[in-house]
Amino acid sequence: MKNKGSKIQPLKGFRDFLPEDMAIRQKVIDTLREVFEAFGFVPLESPALEYSEVLLGKYGKEADKLVYSFKDQGKRDIGLRYDLTVPVSRILAQYQNKIIMPFKRYQIQPVWRAEKPQKGRYREFVQCDADIFGVNSPLADAEIIALIFQGLKSLKLNNFQIKINSRQVLFELMAKANVPKEKQLRAIIILDKLPKKGKKLVEQELADFLSSDIARNIIKLISKANPDNYLQAVLDLLLKYNLPAGSWMFEPSLARGLDYYTGPIFETVISNSAVGSITGGGRYDNLVSQLGGPQLVAIGTTFGLDRIIEVIRKDNLWPDLPTAQTKVLITVFLPGYLDQSLKTVSRLREKKINSEIYLEPNARLNKQLKYADKKGIPWVVILGPEEIKEKKILLKNMKTGDQEKVSLEKAIGKLSQN
Amino acid sequence: MKNKGSKIQPLKGFRDFLPEDMAIRQKVIDTLREVFEAFGFVPLESPALEYSEVLLGKYGKEADKLVYSFKDQGKRDIGLRYDLTVPVSRILAQYQNKIIMPFKRYQIQPVWRAEKPQKGRYREFVQCDADIFGVNSPLADAEIIALIFQGLKSLKLNNFQIKINSRQVLFELMAKANVPKEKQLRAIIILDKLPKKGKKLVEQELADFLSSDIARNIIKLISKANPDNYLQAVLDLLLKYNLPAGSWMFEPSLARGLDYYTGPIFETVISNSAVGSITGGGRYDNLVSQLGGPQLVAIGTTFGLDRIIEVIRKDNLWPDLPTAQTKVLITVFLPGYLDQSLKTVSRLREKKINSEIYLEPNARLNKQLKYADKKGIPWVVILGPEEIKEKKILLKNMKTGDQEKVSLEKAIGKLSQN
Repeated sequence: MKNKGSKIQPLKGFRDFLPEDMAIRQKVIDTLREVFEAFGFVPLESPALEYSEVLLGKYGKEADKLVYSFKDQGKRDIGLRYDLTVPVSRILAQYQNKIIMPFKRYQIQPVWRAEKPQKGRYREFVQCDADIFGVNSPLADAEIIALIFQGLKSLKLNNFQIKINSRQVLFELMAKANVPKEKQLRAIIILDKLPKKGKKLVEQELADFLSSDIARNIIKLISKANPDNYLQAVLDLLLKYNLPAGSWMFEPSLARGLDYYTGPIFETVISNSAVGSITGGGRYDNLVSQLGGPQLVAIGTTFGLDRIIEVIRKDNLWPDLPTAQTKVLITVFLPGYLDQSLKTVSRLREKKINSEIYLEPNARLNKQLKYADKKGIPWVVILGPEEIKEKKILLKNMKTGDQEKVSLEKAIGKLSQN
Repeated sequence: MKNKGSKIQPLKGFRDFLPEDMAIRQKVIDTLREVFEAFGFVPLESPALEYSEVLLGKYGKEADKLVYSFKDQGKRDIGLRYDLTVPVSRILAQYQNKIIMPFKRYQIQPVWRAEKPQKGRYREFVQCDADIFGVNSPLADAEIIALIFQGLKSLKLNNFQIKINSRQVLFELMAKANVPKEKQLRAIIILDKLPKKGKKLVEQELADFLSSDIARNIIKLISKANPDNYLQAVLDLLLKYNLPAGSWMFEPSLARGLDYYTGPIFETVISNSAVGSITGGGRYDNLVSQLGGPQLVAIGTTFGLDRIIEVIRKDNLWPDLPTAQTKVLITVFLPGYLDQSLKTVSRLREKKINSEIYLEPNARLNKQLKYADKKGIPWVVILGPEEIKEKKILLKNMKTGDQEKVSLEKAIGKLSQN
């Protein structure tokens, strides 16, 4: 069992997902896919590699440094996708005569960023994006927020709040506080730190950037701000979706750190949790064309897969998720009884019950049971001489140790439920 | 609608998958996942990027040239995975104290190869691998072949043949034909071209490499060869899985072009089709350790996603696969009726019927119907004054033009079936 390579670990910031990690990841992704499709979003996938020209210069120099870019065998400048918005903008440009507007697409794929790895920050992570392109109507914004609610609810998350604001609300507030136009965006991005840093520190930062009078005024105005007309229309629509009170709210201090939003913005947090926002998004009516796409208004959200999994794990929201995907091990009592075991395993698989047969028919039964135990397989089938004679099977529950002699069809009924 | 970039196309050999391409891809992958899990295989995922040391020097210099490798921001030599067997070998080494043998894993992820793009050959493609590690028993080989059968059957493929041979059969034949030991593997790899090039050309190639007597003898012996003992045990087991006659067969001329197989080998072809093999695999008892993993015997197969999709499309095997994932468009008859439309769309989504609401409530009904038509959405719901008064909905079939006034619950029943 000697290793030939010295670097047998994955690269820093990259992760292997062993089977026990995969179960929860797959279920989150499958659930989101189902909700996206229920809302009429359609799937899209783009290549991992793109021309550097497509990837670079879109989000500024700091972002460019994080793009994995290199020359391929044909000396082309290429790179790994940094997000899913740049590729979809390229696709919207390329297929603009084919794609019918409005276009509601979802995209669930990994992206790569050469960031400094730290707790909860990876160099390879999956983004789950849903966006609507080509609609400038509050109903599109409301649909995205309803989608966020339904996605999180379907994932069994609770205690979450979708906080909603608008860049217009913040710009109006900045004007009221006499912040010069050219300084407004930067001031809004400072404001974004409010929940993390608290009022005092943010006011100080604003004071350093503007003046202490203006900073004090911004902080004072922020709690009293009202939605602008467009956002009010979105909020009015939301009432009609029957989302429970408290699951969403107007939050005038919400700023979002990115500079490309043009209208409503929103993010979701978990009460009393340090996990940070689990969704984020908003309206970005100018970005698609800035990224190389056509002039198309857009609104969308991303779901943070890793953070959502962290919440599900921490709060034990899915207690029934099996740790082993395999439900039943069919043992081989004696090599001569292999036929019966093979018939049984084939029948269980037909019924979509995940089943293994023990692959070494000469092994002692005890060894086979130990294998099921170590793998966490919850049920074992034993087919001894008595069972075969009576045309039954012995079904053993590995957790309780209980076992019962039943017909195969009765066992299938039981295993299909549990 | 002007594009800012000149390189709006994807890189050569890379593909965008638009929604109409995604439906079939997702269904093939979901189906294979379900079958893999029914057979007790568990999922695994590894990073796209690995240390070059992990990736290079494993399959020889020709393969190394095809690896996308480069230096990252920290000057580390890294590369994109070339296949899924190298990463799983690294994982088997790294977690050897954690992973319980036998280990049955499946892995469905893209791989990257800087090959010359040509029809049906891409630089980015998804591999679907299922392998059993740590079992040296014919039952493991039989399980993989049964898995191939069940996978293809679940995909509704027909007219397929799983051709089975063993490297041992070929080595014995080479010995009988007096091929010197050191030339046997190369001769076997020449033989692999038999179905494509035909007997005459292959015999010529063998004659050039060996002698015309030996070449003639090989071709003569090949049709009369018999399974070795191990393969015979596998074939005997296969009889017990009740696979239909003709869906699998011993094929002594099957050679497989790769040099690492050590025992049974198999591939699947479609009768009277030029698509090539749609699955390929075999036993490779020395490869895992050669790739940097522990000394572990192994057997497995890969399913060729792109070729399988080609067959499904060409033979129209899935006539009922909807081209649009969205089943129903809920129109907005008048802006004042939006409430009713929103209630209806929410109810349909609850029932997991993929539904869109028309996002511009001011648009004329005719425009909304045209949108459904262009998108290929098969059903439309209209809620006019009459329907609202009678607490019904008008359900329109966009293909036939038929429409009927029914209760929402009745419509749900109908839409859930169709």
